[in-house]
Amino acid sequence: MRAELINTGSELLLGNVVNTHLSWLGRELFPIGLRIARQTTVPDGSDIGDAITDSLARGTKILLVTGGLGPTGDDLTREICADLFHCPLEFHSAVLESIRERLARRNIELRENMKRQALVPSGAEVLPNAHGTAPGLYFSPECTASDTPVGTHLFLLPGPPRELHPMFLNEVVPRLRTVLAEAAQPPRSMRIYRVCAMGESAVEEKIGKQIEEEGLVEVGYCARPNEVDLRLIGDDADIERWHTQILLALGENLFTFGEQSMEERVVSLLQSRALTVATAESCTGGLLAHRITNVPGASEVFHRGYVTYSNEAKETLLGVSADLLLREGAVSSAVAAAMAEGALLRSASDFALSTTGIAGPGGGSPAKPVGTVYFGLAEKGKPTLTWNACYPMDRESFKQVASQSALDKLRRRLCA
Amino acid sequence: MRAELINTGSELLLGNVVNTHLSWLGRELFPIGLRIARQTTVPDGSDIGDAITDSLARGTKILLVTGGLGPTGDDLTREICADLFHCPLEFHSAVLESIRERLARRNIELRENMKRQALVPSGAEVLPNAHGTAPGLYFSPECTASDTPVGTHLFLLPGPPRELHPMFLNEVVPRLRTVLAEAAQPPRSMRIYRVCAMGESAVEEKIGKQIEEEGLVEVGYCARPNEVDLRLIGDDADIERWHTQILLALGENLFTFGEQSMEERVVSLLQSRALTVATAESCTGGLLAHRITNVPGASEVFHRGYVTYSNEAKETLLGVSADLLLREGAVSSAVAAAMAEGALLRSASDFALSTTGIAGPGGGSPAKPVGTVYFGLAEKGKPTLTWNACYPMDRESFKQVASQSALDKLRRRLCA
Repeated sequence: MRAELINTGSELLLGNVVNTHLSWLGRELFPIGLRIARQTTVPDGSDIGDAITDSLARGTKILLVTGGLGPTGDDLTREICADLFHCPLEFHSAVLESIRERLARRNIELRENMKRQALVPSGAEVLPNAHGTAPGLYFSPECTASDTPVGTHLFLLPGPPRELHPMFLNEVVPRLRTVLAEAAQPPRSMRIYRVCAMGESAVEEKIGKQIEEEGLVEVGYCARPNEVDLRLIGDDADIERWHTQILLALGENLFTFGEQSMEERVVSLLQSRALTVATAESCTGGLLAHRITNVPGASEVFHRGYVTYSNEAKETLLGVSADLLLREGAVSSAVAAAMAEGALLRSASDFALSTTGIAGPGGGSPAKPVGTVYFGLAEKGKPTLTWNACYPMDRESFKQVASQSALDKLRRRLCA
Repeated sequence: MRAELINTGSELLLGNVVNTHLSWLGRELFPIGLRIARQTTVPDGSDIGDAITDSLARGTKILLVTGGLGPTGDDLTREICADLFHCPLEFHSAVLESIRERLARRNIELRENMKRQALVPSGAEVLPNAHGTAPGLYFSPECTASDTPVGTHLFLLPGPPRELHPMFLNEVVPRLRTVLAEAAQPPRSMRIYRVCAMGESAVEEKIGKQIEEEGLVEVGYCARPNEVDLRLIGDDADIERWHTQILLALGENLFTFGEQSMEERVVSLLQSRALTVATAESCTGGLLAHRITNVPGASEVFHRGYVTYSNEAKETLLGVSADLLLREGAVSSAVAAAMAEGALLRSASDFALSTTGIAGPGGGSPAKPVGTVYFGLAEKGKPTLTWNACYPMDRESFKQVASQSALDKLRRRLCA
């Protein structure tokens, strides 16, 4: 059953905002048995109609369209679909009432332009929006039949993610489940094996190729900052038969074979062993703490973090000696060790991770170019580990890759 | 001149990775005079050819395709284009040599599957990759002419952003500039007015509508976490004539009318006044420090940050009294104030920002539901400001919106 996604919004094509809908919806659709066959982004305006027509011509049975349902003049999806499917817009007073109530609770006045959001194409169903004023709309195959070869389920959904997500889960998923139950799709499983510190080619050569040659399981790869994902899709039993061989081939580079991110893996390992970690960050500037605290329940394993950007902060907050800073420089193995040890001692945590480096674009030297980073991992009653790397890339990628390396070292230590 | 973008990769459609290419390329293309008319994502495999054919049929003159140039079996873009444009693949030993050298520098062996990356479709130009093994490819209109109505400039680019970005800037932009110079496109300007703490409808009603009614400038809106962008595209002079009225209409809610993010604005305001800020974070868990340190040059204005997740950390690192924590609770106005004051005093900064709240999903109560957050802004020699809000949303959005509110308060203070 062909599913497609159309994202509307000139801001997406101009690059003013990153499109997160595709990844979010892709991840939510797979477990119910759907894969997005094609995704399209078009600007606000008449191109929306063209993109819908193109998609229907490809035999799309389930079509999700996001954006263009709001109050402003560039929000035209509702009007375009009403035209396309010959469903004249009708004013729904109940919808206006719920918009009015929602605004009243937040002490916001109902502006004239908001009233457009109470217009509903005749025959379409209203999908209530619990987190915003713009309702979603559902066109059943009966509504769209005159203009599509197959009769398409068309969903118009709001653009802001925090409105889209609950509406999708509460209103769209139940309708899709009914459609899919009628179509009796065979169940497929996906499993992702994630490795750190191992390249894409090596993953293919060590194991991916063999799985592919067997021909039963679909194999894919994705190279990410300091990470490679090996993706398997197929029958659960076919995937499971490869499991042991995969574990052997990837070894300790493998950090998860589920949906876990590196930070989720680290937090869950610490939780299961009732251990804690503190952070002492210079060049990652808080990202390490941010990633750890993105995980629900992080407060059990993470009590404090230091962002010691200046030398003075490294001295007063972590007890790194002025002499050491002068002798070795802030970006050095000795300072990374001292930072981690200072954080360990002061936080009474079981582990402490430190980073110190040159994120760039300025600040590099021939001996320590932009991208240089030293790490420390201190542990109660054990010698402190240090290591270093050079990631000559843009500032944000550098922070991402460096924080991944720090988390991965702790993970390996916890699994050892 | 119609430009389109095709992103390939099953991982994008399955949601395993967020597509950042569209936003990055969209932002880079606009200043040289190009807008992406449509973007398409397709899975690895034969759909790539269909998407290219569809795009060419729409009269696309400049087509960028990302991904599928790597060493693994699912990387097929090179082969598909060779077929499509009847350009048989030829082995280029110079390309293989540069791959071999690159790997040798990093002590990685040349694996058999990497050699495919040295195959070049006959007539296509090789675009060197300074940050990875897979070269890019350029098909001139002469190469593609037999299969396109207009003769298209086709660029095949690598998927990993840190390989794509430099290749685009160094290899693609100069070629596009030549093409555009020949076509003599009229210059267009874009200006984005960004506001915090003001809704989309209000922005349209107060000023957007009038600009739109005049009909000379294209107006767009984008609602983001705790931010609305008003986007104007047109002749520079036409935009400039509205400038004063826009400033009056948006008032102090406006935080930038350029490309600056909130954190860039705050850092530049601090830099220009030679002032510093420290952070004391509980519920934002390091994100505030991370956002500030994403800005190059942040070290001039930011010397340290505290991530005090536990009560004990709030006491020992910031001097919040145990008594106050017990009496008011960690999530309270009094504790937010004490955190900010503690950070101000200890860091000897000019300002300190604090956050304490309930990011969820657990930890809420009827009096303080998930999403509750208290903020503090302490300033040398001034009374401490506190404020609070409730952002009942997912954990990461909550952190994003809360950190935006904290940065915005400091910005308003600096502009007052």
